[in-house]
Amino acid sequence: MSRLATLIDGKKLANELNEQTKQAVEALSAKGVQPGLAVIIVGEDPASQLYVRNKHRKAAQLGIHSVVKQLPADITQAELLAVVRQLNSDSSIHGILVQSPLPEPLDEHEVTRTISPEKDVDGFHPLNVGLLYTNMKLQYPVACTPKGIMTMLAAYDVPLSGKHAVVVGRSNIVGRPMTALLMQADATVTIANRHTENLKSLTRQADILVVATGVAHLIKAADVKPGATVIDVGMDRDENGKLTGDVDFEAVSQVAGKITPVPGGVGPMTIATLMQQTVELAKWSETSGS
Amino acid sequence: MSRLATLIDGKKLANELNEQTKQAVEALSAKGVQPGLAVIIVGEDPASQLYVRNKHRKAAQLGIHSVVKQLPADITQAELLAVVRQLNSDSSIHGILVQSPLPEPLDEHEVTRTISPEKDVDGFHPLNVGLLYTNMKLQYPVACTPKGIMTMLAAYDVPLSGKHAVVVGRSNIVGRPMTALLMQADATVTIANRHTENLKSLTRQADILVVATGVAHLIKAADVKPGATVIDVGMDRDENGKLTGDVDFEAVSQVAGKITPVPGGVGPMTIATLMQQTVELAKWSETSGS
Repeated sequence: MSRLATLIDGKKLANELNEQTKQAVEALSAKGVQPGLAVIIVGEDPASQLYVRNKHRKAAQLGIHSVVKQLPADITQAELLAVVRQLNSDSSIHGILVQSPLPEPLDEHEVTRTISPEKDVDGFHPLNVGLLYTNMKLQYPVACTPKGIMTMLAAYDVPLSGKHAVVVGRSNIVGRPMTALLMQADATVTIANRHTENLKSLTRQADILVVATGVAHLIKAADVKPGATVIDVGMDRDENGKLTGDVDFEAVSQVAGKITPVPGGVGPMTIATLMQQTVELAKWSETSGS
Repeated sequence: MSRLATLIDGKKLANELNEQTKQAVEALSAKGVQPGLAVIIVGEDPASQLYVRNKHRKAAQLGIHSVVKQLPADITQAELLAVVRQLNSDSSIHGILVQSPLPEPLDEHEVTRTISPEKDVDGFHPLNVGLLYTNMKLQYPVACTPKGIMTMLAAYDVPLSGKHAVVVGRSNIVGRPMTALLMQADATVTIANRHTENLKSLTRQADILVVATGVAHLIKAADVKPGATVIDVGMDRDENGKLTGDVDFEAVSQVAGKITPVPGGVGPMTIATLMQQTVELAKWSETSGS
């Protein structure tokens, strides 16, 4: 128990970011542009309903025009795409997202590709992913969880250039865009997946460790390099049903240099980044003249 | 000097692939579709001229309709984009590529984004990069050098799932798409760049090492894990002006399990893959009905 890591306070950072977003919304509104966010939800999954309510409430708090499109679970793919296209052409909406997961047999990828890239507030459209992965010097939306993590790393002065970042999990929502952003910041990046042999020998080399696996307490103290920055994207339930992360926080915070808690780490930053990006899309739509 | 690595014979594999491509061209031509490739070259750079001649000759050998658009070095961006758009709408052309680098002040990225994604035979358009990086189960072109390397790894039965691949160099032409393809094959992938600290300690961990840095003989025997597969993308000149790679072939082939030579490794596979992909684009254009 030689040290106790600095807590990366996602809640505090999210509050600060939200305050900036609120001011940006006011500035835009004064120019006659109210940023607008549309969230499409299909079916009645309780977790999805909760996420959507949280986004809707936060948007309203910040002065963002927020629309929730609640659609029945038995909607057809064609009907769902029509809703997306209607929002694409609605000038009061600058950001569109579809709450994941969609009920079977809806094709989520096709829905993502149908959202106008200029309104793709989740940053999941392949065109935006490609602009990110090729490091284009243009304005485009980026997946909110990794974008928020970059904001956290910057706020806590975590050096990235030349450092070894290990990303555990290769989802399109977290792991892959996280890898791209860390590469852009000149980090050496290792991206691991469920097939990875000797995972722990890799995590022990990480100066920055980002864990997004959905496996509660996968990462123990012995798996972390002393002094490392540990970012826990997990939102898991422990044996008592309590919200916890992919990292054994109590033990790892004795080894790590900086660490995010769960809850109060990545989660609040993701939603704050979503709001930030909605406003950015509204701004960009103005400057592009559309 | 305990072992001598198996040579990954890119020339032999390229000949085999070209033979398959030739047969595919014949099959398509019998159905009234001759695959067409357009190569745009701007200016008189001798190396670029040589590359373009090689592509043109190989295409002709395989029965591909091949067009070279030689444009003056002082062409404007608008004029260049107009040539691209004309080829986009030319139904005899299925693949378009722009020989890199373009003379200053032309904007290569904008040219890449102007090529129709369906004709983007180099796989550099951000939409195609995004489809690759999000691992979409669709048909799209992929950068030819890493795609050719995947063909080589498969031909030599190199296991990838769970293995640690280290990619040195993060270009959009090689390193980044290589990383995506190795991830898709369930490898753990580390991507290094010029800022990477302790590069050699990473390369020594690689089961598969792909080197694309342009630094002659950067990788020595001590930097390679015994038995590793080593893929050398370098096309460098040694002190005597002789073509050589990023890997010290003589020494490393005593340590590696499998290794590509330079020349005769990745180079011939890249051009063979370009031809393969031209035919694929022609096929896909048929099935999509356009």
